[in-house]
Amino acid sequence: MCRWLAYSGSPILLDELLYKPRHSLIDQSLHARLGVETTNGDGFGVGWYAVDGGPPVLFRGTGPAWSDPNLRELASTVSSPLFLAHIRASTGTPVQQTNCHPFRHGRWLWMHNGAIRDFSRVKRDLVLAVNPELYPNIAGSTDSEVMFHLALTFGLQDDPVAAVERMVGFVESVGQQHGVQHPVQMTVAMTDGERMWVFRYSSEHESRSLYFSTAVSTLRAMYPDNENLRRVSDETRIVVSEPLVELVGAWQPVPESSYGVIQKGADRLGTFRPSLP
Amino acid sequence: MCRWLAYSGSPILLDELLYKPRHSLIDQSLHARLGVETTNGDGFGVGWYAVDGGPPVLFRGTGPAWSDPNLRELASTVSSPLFLAHIRASTGTPVQQTNCHPFRHGRWLWMHNGAIRDFSRVKRDLVLAVNPELYPNIAGSTDSEVMFHLALTFGLQDDPVAAVERMVGFVESVGQQHGVQHPVQMTVAMTDGERMWVFRYSSEHESRSLYFSTAVSTLRAMYPDNENLRRVSDETRIVVSEPLVELVGAWQPVPESSYGVIQKGADRLGTFRPSLP
Amino acid sequence: MCRWLAYSGSPILLDELLYKPRHSLIDQSLHARLGVETTNGDGFGVGWYAVDGGPPVLFRGTGPAWSDPNLRELASTVSSPLFLAHIRASTGTPVQQTNCHPFRHGRWLWMHNGAIRDFSRVKRDLVLAVNPELYPNIAGSTDSEVMFHLALTFGLQDDPVAAVERMVGFVESVGQQHGVQHPVQMTVAMTDGERMWVFRYSSEHESRSLYFSTAVSTLRAMYPDNENLRRVSDETRIVVSEPLVELVGAWQPVPESSYGVIQKGADRLGTFRPSLP
Amino acid sequence: MCRWLAYSGSPILLDELLYKPRHSLIDQSLHARLGVETTNGDGFGVGWYAVDGGPPVLFRGTGPAWSDPNLRELASTVSSPLFLAHIRASTGTPVQQTNCHPFRHGRWLWMHNGAIRDFSRVKRDLVLAVNPELYPNIAGSTDSEVMFHLALTFGLQDDPVAAVERMVGFVESVGQQHGVQHPVQMTVAMTDGERMWVFRYSSEHESRSLYFSTAVSTLRAMYPDNENLRRVSDETRIVVSEPLVELVGAWQPVPESSYGVIQKGADRLGTFRPSLP
Repeated sequence: MCRWLAYSGSPILLDELLYKPRHSLIDQSLHARLGVETTNGDGFGVGWYAVDGGPPVLFRGTGPAWSDPNLRELASTVSSPLFLAHIRASTGTPVQQTNCHPFRHGRWLWMHNGAIRDFSRVKRDLVLAVNPELYPNIAGSTDSEVMFHLALTFGLQDDPVAAVERMVGFVESVGQQHGVQHPVQMTVAMTDGERMWVFRYSSEHESRSLYFSTAVSTLRAMYPDNENLRRVSDETRIVVSEPLVELVGAWQPVPESSYGVIQKGADRLGTFRPSLP
Repeated sequence: MCRWLAYSGSPILLDELLYKPRHSLIDQSLHARLGVETTNGDGFGVGWYAVDGGPPVLFRGTGPAWSDPNLRELASTVSSPLFLAHIRASTGTPVQQTNCHPFRHGRWLWMHNGAIRDFSRVKRDLVLAVNPELYPNIAGSTDSEVMFHLALTFGLQDDPVAAVERMVGFVESVGQQHGVQHPVQMTVAMTDGERMWVFRYSSEHESRSLYFSTAVSTLRAMYPDNENLRRVSDETRIVVSEPLVELVGAWQPVPESSYGVIQKGADRLGTFRPSLP
Repeated sequence: MCRWLAYSGSPILLDELLYKPRHSLIDQSLHARLGVETTNGDGFGVGWYAVDGGPPVLFRGTGPAWSDPNLRELASTVSSPLFLAHIRASTGTPVQQTNCHPFRHGRWLWMHNGAIRDFSRVKRDLVLAVNPELYPNIAGSTDSEVMFHLALTFGLQDDPVAAVERMVGFVESVGQQHGVQHPVQMTVAMTDGERMWVFRYSSEHESRSLYFSTAVSTLRAMYPDNENLRRVSDETRIVVSEPLVELVGAWQPVPESSYGVIQKGADRLGTFRPSLP
Repeated sequence: MCRWLAYSGSPILLDELLYKPRHSLIDQSLHARLGVETTNGDGFGVGWYAVDGGPPVLFRGTGPAWSDPNLRELASTVSSPLFLAHIRASTGTPVQQTNCHPFRHGRWLWMHNGAIRDFSRVKRDLVLAVNPELYPNIAGSTDSEVMFHLALTFGLQDDPVAAVERMVGFVESVGQQHGVQHPVQMTVAMTDGERMWVFRYSSEHESRSLYFSTAVSTLRAMYPDNENLRRVSDETRIVVSEPLVELVGAWQPVPESSYGVIQKGADRLGTFRPSLP
């Protein structure tokens, strides 16, 4: 399994979330607390949008995040209002850059924690359903990248939530045809550079942990003396597999079988309902 | 494009062919003379059968062969009567271990120099034709590995030459459907640990270079004082993309559109005729 | 810190100790129980002597051992009567092959778990004491490799135990000059291909864990039905940072401040007494 | 040997010089024309100063530059008014990140093409002369990094040219004591983020090639229709091991045994005279 972090808000150095918090994402690469695996050392990735716009940029490596000098350098110089970061614990597919998250399509980024169960059994049927024009873009061998391309096939760019619901419905249906119990386990974050969507779902309704940060205005009221909270904008939101710091009231679990939309104005939580494409 | 070397004969240290000759395979990784590219630095691989039998063993790396300390160590200790070695110059697919040759299926090894032209355009149709039971074994993203799995699908283990002819015929036919001129360019070596097959073919009949070593008995008669030639058995045969040493009469070009079988008893050359599966 | 394993006895496949035991060295790379760190993912190495003799061979990688396909391949084909294996958790020096254990000098291999405390402060004085003829052989930047070259300088090849005692005495003396409390923490294994020496020592007398396997004859008497024990020779001995399997009576802690010699005939335990060179 | 590029001028995307020119630095990594080696595939590095100031940032990798996806990503997003880029062809020291250029000390960057001849013979004497406070900062094993630390020891930050002259004088003197003919071969670029110094020197006065770009105002007069030249500021200067494009009059060789200073106002060329520290 993996751990991930998605950030949207005032531009900050990657450093502030990847390295500085007590239980930062880099710390989680060595000692995850809430994951199935304590070690997430099978590669990592960061995808960010620059402060002055432009397409998302990827930096992905195959070694453990904790010992990568380039990641540390970049984290101290790259500032971004919107980024995804991921540390990988392979569920069987090889450790190679094309299997590192986030995955990218145009302005879109996608990352995933979890698995399609018995993936090698169902992979062919899933890949066949990918739009043939998108097919050549599948560069690696993970379930996560196939999920992304299925969601793109099913309309991600037009109706993001419905497309992910169709993707999951389809994977569950193919899984059932192959006798797979509980085909899908996932937390997902995706973004087009403007809005961000997060999903928490599993066929067995026991999904991997996922937390979002309490609204900054609420936190400021709770902690009037906290300087970090004064610096960030009201719109700032962090979504993480595991809380980064222990601060009472700072983290809310994303409810089972639900999705969130982080956007200008009020964010939104909804129920996630897989459907057939 | 790439360079490769296939050896069958008296067990020798890998070292003797990978490092020691003046224009060894490792030297070719830095300065190929007859290839489309002079540098073959996008990964490498060796697959060998141990002297005491057993399944083939793979050692494949993503860095350049010339600077890999582990390859040098192993080459000085691994002795084998039958091995394939490959240095890669990517034609576009990523540099990752799952894209390094040789590829393996059970007791079979396969390696390739060349390309399926416009591979990303035809890949989906080719992959769909792979036996669904073999499909999950495709670990990387190269044309070469797809060619291997198509040949396996078309009966490689029963009738090796015919299966490769069907594979090429099929790739040419799919290529033509997509308007690809000259779909196939290849030199291939494959083996089941007993016999070895080599192929030289391209749709345009201008195939990459390929040479086999002259029969040892002939060479001994030509060079009665050469000590290296006295040490090796009569059955020894080397097939290479480029000659390893300059020794007049030592290397014969594999003819255009042909295949060779290296086996106990007399080796055999035949005409390669693509067919439809 | 790190974990290591040293084996001497009937030739076995590396596989048997690196992968197969329930708490194998590879498992320890992900979940060490007795170490300071639970994750040992900063590179790995194996050094072995072939069954038919010859100098030791090294295979060392910079990624985590648990995901290295080449290590898995080699472990299934390399058989050895004497080998050292190491998984690294860096104490600050870079993750690079020249920092991976074992280190080699001629027929000698050396590996270490622990640290010279405040190494960067004392490094220059230590390196200056290395025999100038050995100095160019220091390829990496670890404390462990400097310890090895100091021991070589102080007579390792003539009087192995005394040389290591002098090395430790010297490091402690230099450390004290620089105000370092408890300069040395170590478990070490070294071998010349015939005998093997192991050391457990720390300046504060709270050394990292180290265990040796009970004599095979004793174990056989305790477990007359155990098939694994019937296959191995009486001379077989394993020394490990952590027990590989839970078998009551199978593992004995190496006493604090002591060394062991594993050799033909009776093995030997002695008290380790640092001295000044 | 290696190839390098140093840029000072209007902020530009790294891309513009690393990838886009016909004979770009990345192209030189595969097919250098003027170097001792045609292939520079033993690692690479870029060090840049951000547009908004701050300390220099490093991105260095151990694979070949031509196949590194992260370098390509960064080159398309990092804009800088002052950067150094280097592709390495090892002269014997290992391929590891700590051996990749540029090297950094505080705000200073340093990169080198060439060698200290018989480095392993003279290394100890050279390293001993490094200021003991700087000694722990030597992270790798190259001659180039030792040269940098010697120059720092001899006053680089106060009198840059004199410090490099002392460094070379010292290396030549130590080399001569060890019977080394022609101890130094170098082209060097260094910068403190404000000014840039380049050096071309060798003990035998046959130094590696080095070119600087003609003043932009001159080039504009020569090529009034060239759009690229209209976009860049008058202060822009590029120094390279090999010309990036063929444009008559665009490149001037740095004279043998000389140095250049690139700075606000008029740049400067001077004679390089090794001296004893």
